[in-house]
Amino acid sequence: MTTPLTPVSLRWQGAADGSLEILDQTLLPGRLEWLPCQSVDAVIEAIRMLRVRGAPAIGIAGAYGMVVAAGEAMRAGHPADEARAHVLALAERLATARPTAVNLRWAVERCVRVIDQLPDDTPASGLATALLAEAQAIHAEDRDLCEAIGRHGLAVLPEGDILTHCNTGALATGGAGTALGVIAAAWEAGRRFTVYADETRPLFQGARLTAWELVQRGIPVTVLVDAAAGHLLATGRIAAVIVGADRITACGDTANKIGTYALAILAEAHGVPFFVAAPSSTFDLSLDSGAEIPIEQRAAAEVLAPLGVPAAPAGAGAYNPAFDITPARLIRGIITEKGVVTPVTRDAIRHNLEGHPGPA
Amino acid sequence: MTTPLTPVSLRWQGAADGSLEILDQTLLPGRLEWLPCQSVDAVIEAIRMLRVRGAPAIGIAGAYGMVVAAGEAMRAGHPADEARAHVLALAERLATARPTAVNLRWAVERCVRVIDQLPDDTPASGLATALLAEAQAIHAEDRDLCEAIGRHGLAVLPEGDILTHCNTGALATGGAGTALGVIAAAWEAGRRFTVYADETRPLFQGARLTAWELVQRGIPVTVLVDAAAGHLLATGRIAAVIVGADRITACGDTANKIGTYALAILAEAHGVPFFVAAPSSTFDLSLDSGAEIPIEQRAAAEVLAPLGVPAAPAGAGAYNPAFDITPARLIRGIITEKGVVTPVTRDAIRHNLEGHPGPA
Repeated sequence: MTTPLTPVSLRWQGAADGSLEILDQTLLPGRLEWLPCQSVDAVIEAIRMLRVRGAPAIGIAGAYGMVVAAGEAMRAGHPADEARAHVLALAERLATARPTAVNLRWAVERCVRVIDQLPDDTPASGLATALLAEAQAIHAEDRDLCEAIGRHGLAVLPEGDILTHCNTGALATGGAGTALGVIAAAWEAGRRFTVYADETRPLFQGARLTAWELVQRGIPVTVLVDAAAGHLLATGRIAAVIVGADRITACGDTANKIGTYALAILAEAHGVPFFVAAPSSTFDLSLDSGAEIPIEQRAAAEVLAPLGVPAAPAGAGAYNPAFDITPARLIRGIITEKGVVTPVTRDAIRHNLEGHPGPA
Repeated sequence: MTTPLTPVSLRWQGAADGSLEILDQTLLPGRLEWLPCQSVDAVIEAIRMLRVRGAPAIGIAGAYGMVVAAGEAMRAGHPADEARAHVLALAERLATARPTAVNLRWAVERCVRVIDQLPDDTPASGLATALLAEAQAIHAEDRDLCEAIGRHGLAVLPEGDILTHCNTGALATGGAGTALGVIAAAWEAGRRFTVYADETRPLFQGARLTAWELVQRGIPVTVLVDAAAGHLLATGRIAAVIVGADRITACGDTANKIGTYALAILAEAHGVPFFVAAPSSTFDLSLDSGAEIPIEQRAAAEVLAPLGVPAAPAGAGAYNPAFDITPARLIRGIITEKGVVTPVTRDAIRHNLEGHPGPA
């Protein structure tokens, strides 16, 4: 028996003047190729093109992107003030490379605070060293968060077959994953089940990435088209639906991959519990409700030419929101590293974020 | 301005010893290629591989397939009794080429009744002549049915943008279409709107066929992934959802392309009326409820290799039901050539099928 392999979405190579390597997820599962990013432009391109994706993973990529920015300043020979200005200017570009997930801005802002605490005359190399330490801390913390999310999720996830959407595993995080981390924890705890993975159009993250991770882990996985989830739920074989999140508001409304909202309505219609698993950094308490979350509209070609193959005729338009909003009332519980928010209320969310693992 | 083109899904070439030509829909919209079918095996292959699809169109293809069967008997020089036995044996194979749509069996059985009424000593050529007349009658009737469905649908379809699923147009029928026939009638009546077309995984009939037909007709069409329908409905811009049907039971439960059921639940959740448009031959009164409708499970490759491009890794399974069941309670109205069944009740269905256009 082969040892199950835990994939990794990105890694830092070398010292503070090294480079970020991103596993190019657009090529998976066909090709396993590492993309070296020696410029912030390359990091931003990788985030925009979804070579690295998943809210926690793009946060980590953003943090390493800040180290790359300091490396650019080093190689350019910028004096301290110019180096700092260079890195701070790129911070804003990194933070806005994608609009919906809040983790990206959260991670970049953590790095900015590190810079703010350094003396004004810190040279570029000093910025790079401090930023690398912070990025590695964020990366390591995310591993721990995934483990804690898995542990808390295990306590509430019913036994039986699970339905999930998009990819929320090692490829989307710095550890075992959020929703997929809970699933992995359940498997490691000895439970046996099949994971039904929505293929997750338009970019097939479920078919390409979730199925790949689960095959690697030796967990049975069955892929279905997103439109088949209603019929699958009607058969009664699904014990729970569990997904990740890109941003969660103060009231619990959750932005996640397009199709999540429909899945939550379908789960409710069939009396199947619907869980969200995400680190607490996914909460954006500055937003009161889901209506305030910006929804990224992506390129028409993602819809009209699946996997690069033209399907629709010339003259057809496309509607391609990357995310949708699931209202809190449809969510049975939000699983964070600090515990499980259930029922999902403002008070329970605040209580959880303050570090109380149990109910409010 | 180019004249809008009404596509045709199939045509008969020559006299009773001629052949059926099927527009190979698996190649659309990239290539417009006619497939000559000179054997029943070729007709069955075309139906199974969805080169011709759509419940009414495969009914018409099945009827012409009976003419092809008689042609085989002619060319083989079968005497009258063997010719009749040959055609009747192939009738059963044609009727079961796909299991869910009832129109196929309905059309083949109409052809069998034509044979039953011919004298025992009718030669193969006589069978072929009588069968061609019946197939052409079924084809022409379907054109009229589509026109009547369009007329009745226009009376109940709200003004505004429309969401549809799969393909229910000229490519799926012998005329302008069922659900798409209603949409075309609304456009021709001077209404202006955008049609949102679910791409309809796994075979992309929405992106490939519905979008193509609408572009041909000059009707604005916007394609979306099936998973985006919930978000689209939540935006409030959809006035109605309208779909076709493959089989409708005595109580109004409706089998249609996978994803229809989820769409009906989503429409209900957003207070958007959900209509089914289908000829009355789609009703199967021998079935009491949707639980009795057989659901075709199709090949895993349709899910795992979209448009022939492998997406999922080796080791992943697939769940691929081709249809799902929408319960009658989710359907605002069923539009047939005889009128509109609304509300959808057993009595209203019986009343409609007896030819009364108005409510029961």
